[in-house]
Amino acid sequence: MSASQTGSFRALKARAAEIHHLTKVAWVLNWDQRTMMPAAGATGRAGQLGTVARVAHDLLVADEMARLLDDVGAYEDGLDLDSDDACLIRFLRREHEKARSVPAQLRAEMIAAAARALPVWDRARAESDFESFRPYLERNLAQRREYVSCLGETDEPYDHLLDEFEPGMKTAEVRAVFDELKEGLVPLIAEISEREPIDSSCLSGDFPLERQQEIERRVLEAFGFTRESWRIDETTHPFASSSSISDIRITTRHQPGDLHSLFSTMHEFGHGLYEHQISLDLEGTPLARGTSLGIHESQSRMWENLVGRGLAFWRHFYPQLQEVFPSFADVELDEFYRAINAVRPSLIRIDSDEATYNLHIILRFELEQELLAGDGDLRDLPEIWDARIREYLGIDVPDVADGVLQDMHWAAGHVGYFATYSLGNIVSCQLWERIRDELPDLDDQFEQGEFGALREWLGENIHRHGRKFPPAELLERVVGGGIDPQPYLAYLRAKLGEIYQLGGNHVSPKSPLLES
Amino acid sequence: MSASQTGSFRALKARAAEIHHLTKVAWVLNWDQRTMMPAAGATGRAGQLGTVARVAHDLLVADEMARLLDDVGAYEDGLDLDSDDACLIRFLRREHEKARSVPAQLRAEMIAAAARALPVWDRARAESDFESFRPYLERNLAQRREYVSCLGETDEPYDHLLDEFEPGMKTAEVRAVFDELKEGLVPLIAEISEREPIDSSCLSGDFPLERQQEIERRVLEAFGFTRESWRIDETTHPFASSSSISDIRITTRHQPGDLHSLFSTMHEFGHGLYEHQISLDLEGTPLARGTSLGIHESQSRMWENLVGRGLAFWRHFYPQLQEVFPSFADVELDEFYRAINAVRPSLIRIDSDEATYNLHIILRFELEQELLAGDGDLRDLPEIWDARIREYLGIDVPDVADGVLQDMHWAAGHVGYFATYSLGNIVSCQLWERIRDELPDLDDQFEQGEFGALREWLGENIHRHGRKFPPAELLERVVGGGIDPQPYLAYLRAKLGEIYQLGGNHVSPKSPLLES
Repeated sequence: MSASQTGSFRALKARAAEIHHLTKVAWVLNWDQRTMMPAAGATGRAGQLGTVARVAHDLLVADEMARLLDDVGAYEDGLDLDSDDACLIRFLRREHEKARSVPAQLRAEMIAAAARALPVWDRARAESDFESFRPYLERNLAQRREYVSCLGETDEPYDHLLDEFEPGMKTAEVRAVFDELKEGLVPLIAEISEREPIDSSCLSGDFPLERQQEIERRVLEAFGFTRESWRIDETTHPFASSSSISDIRITTRHQPGDLHSLFSTMHEFGHGLYEHQISLDLEGTPLARGTSLGIHESQSRMWENLVGRGLAFWRHFYPQLQEVFPSFADVELDEFYRAINAVRPSLIRIDSDEATYNLHIILRFELEQELLAGDGDLRDLPEIWDARIREYLGIDVPDVADGVLQDMHWAAGHVGYFATYSLGNIVSCQLWERIRDELPDLDDQFEQGEFGALREWLGENIHRHGRKFPPAELLERVVGGGIDPQPYLAYLRAKLGEIYQLGGNHVSPKSPLLES
Repeated sequence: MSASQTGSFRALKARAAEIHHLTKVAWVLNWDQRTMMPAAGATGRAGQLGTVARVAHDLLVADEMARLLDDVGAYEDGLDLDSDDACLIRFLRREHEKARSVPAQLRAEMIAAAARALPVWDRARAESDFESFRPYLERNLAQRREYVSCLGETDEPYDHLLDEFEPGMKTAEVRAVFDELKEGLVPLIAEISEREPIDSSCLSGDFPLERQQEIERRVLEAFGFTRESWRIDETTHPFASSSSISDIRITTRHQPGDLHSLFSTMHEFGHGLYEHQISLDLEGTPLARGTSLGIHESQSRMWENLVGRGLAFWRHFYPQLQEVFPSFADVELDEFYRAINAVRPSLIRIDSDEATYNLHIILRFELEQELLAGDGDLRDLPEIWDARIREYLGIDVPDVADGVLQDMHWAAGHVGYFATYSLGNIVSCQLWERIRDELPDLDDQFEQGEFGALREWLGENIHRHGRKFPPAELLERVVGGGIDPQPYLAYLRAKLGEIYQLGGNHVSPKSPLLES
């Protein structure tokens, strides 16, 4: 290839690096805002975030970027399709074209409208007053309709919203997967609801914060958290972020009355580990991030649920938990294990158990498509919400705060996001099947407090690739197929079947997903 | 004026806002690096800081900025000279022209060379090995010579270096002021050295960190620190920073064996208060910062020394200190006051007392001009350093770590910076004279733990203006004259004269600078 070809690629990569650095700067500013920033700093911070986003967007849509993407064509032709450089060029071309399709004005208005809607939603939820929030939701939805219309033909308009969070994913595909999931979950949850409820009272009590931090520290260190490259801080709504591959920041929210933050922290560790194990060859490029929210969630759910609510993990850590919290001295491991895996239909998505969680998601996924279509009157939304909750979970919604207003996503303009949570659950079990095939002694390792083999498997098969491959392609490479809810359903049937002593039709004790 | 004129000004202001936001983003990234960032994040952070600086610089030197500065000429003609808009235009024009004079290539090389020099300096200091650092210092100096040559005619080349830190200040003016300062200080220090040394042993001992934080918290709250708008965190080398006028961040370094951090924290509070009391009308513009390092230092020194080492302050806080640290129970206030004001020539600038500190600065100011001129061989620098320390302070330098390598400034490429420290000392006392004229009951207020009147005076006369006026103009507006070391000398003579019971020729007990 000619010197000018590689010169163009170098120039393209330098520009891509600047875009990436600015994205990471925005992550640090967001992390700072949610963990460190004095409250009065909010106005100044909004201006900083707006400028960083504007500058990064300008670099991405610039004519110079178009010219460089043209110029590298010949260089690209000579590359291995899976090489870092070829993946980077494909990725930038897609991002550039998509960003150019949406007018800068609309994009700015979407950001501004969300910024205005969030505090209104916050107040509306506090006062359980849907009507005050309704015009803002209407505006966010109208903008999404306009956004979709900028992006050209697809099978369904909602595809474009999904694509923001799960690149390449189609609505029809998610619908088919969720229908299959629902078909498996509804009878399972119904059968559980006929059993004696599990007594989870051991999980409530007096758990002093510094002791929670102590057990958390032991778990995180066993998982692979180091002070050299990680931080953990308190926040209101826990999240994971990073400044670079070598600077990972997770957050938590300790409550003295329960142990929820321990599981939340394992969840955020999963997100953090993904960003931490991306190949250093990709550092400084926009490929140095997780490939989609769904794949990200598969990682967080894996560490939270498949590891952290598993028996092998607790065979190692339960004696330590008993040592740190003497209230568990009289609680058998089995009782504790049942308590942390109890299924109980509830109003709030983020508080719900592994099985019913997905019904919360499916409900939102279905509703979002109707909202985007714009059929019906938004005034009726709370009523529709309550009716669906009754239908899916069999419970009554007392007020909109615990109903349609419980999540911030729609206020933030994140329509199309929710599906990725259940996609993550599903993918986590597809990966888990493969992992247990390849690492047959995983339970023994967990019982010894060893998590290195799992960590390395994930690094090698998922993490190191960053955004080189879109999520469907990555999954195909690892499990040899598309998204499939059956391993997840098999896992739930086996685990919950044993815990609730359900009839044989739900139980498959030989499932490769459960420890023997 | 025409609509296009105000339109151009709006466009100019929007661009200026982006430059300002990016500057503040860099401040947050720096703060994060020095207080929060896991160590392994350093490489990624360098890339982020480099990108933010590059983008901000591009916006400043862009042709679009030149065009807008031309276009606003007619609008500017109609403005009051002191108006925010007129000051902003003048400020941007100056910054734009200066930035355009220096080739982007040289600027980038200066930043890169400093980044390479800093770790070498760090190691050289640890190993007391000047020769390993010498080539890096040589490079930094050569770049400064080239930089100076880009900026056109001045009375002396060093003027351009000073201008980076103290805009508009001339070398000849600083030289005259420092000569006068030296003339007053040398005999004062000589006379003190003949007196019985003050026993400062009460300042060493066991001071548990949480108790230090307790007394610090009380002092800061009395000064005006609020959780709504301020933070304080631990770091290695304390500094003050801010994300915006409403988000001020100071840092400290607690040592269990001494109380130094209390004075350091008062110092950083002074810097923070300056940034915090800038007029909100200037927020989001590049004028929303302190006007120079010298004026900034006048504020930090005022709170550290004129307030925090004063008798009225301690009349209020000493009983609280005794309560927090029982070791002071048997130490009289007078003894404590003498201990915190003891004069003792020492090797290290940052550990030195109020009087000898300035000799450290004058020595560096003189040396820097010789270094810039490039006379002589850098190999001889340690020897020259040691000889001057002996001449100015009467002490021997045991090694280069405690000699010429003690400060990071030259490694960071900050030549011309040191002078601002003593300029700050001098200005603090010029302001103090005016403040005591206008607030005659200041001591009574301090004794009551009240600092609001001082805070408001500083806000009204100094802080609110931000960078509207260059430092000399600001000083002229407040004290009606230029920089003058006599109030500072009078303050030192009076305070130290009393403490050391010096002869009458040094003592002016009626000095308006000292409480009666």
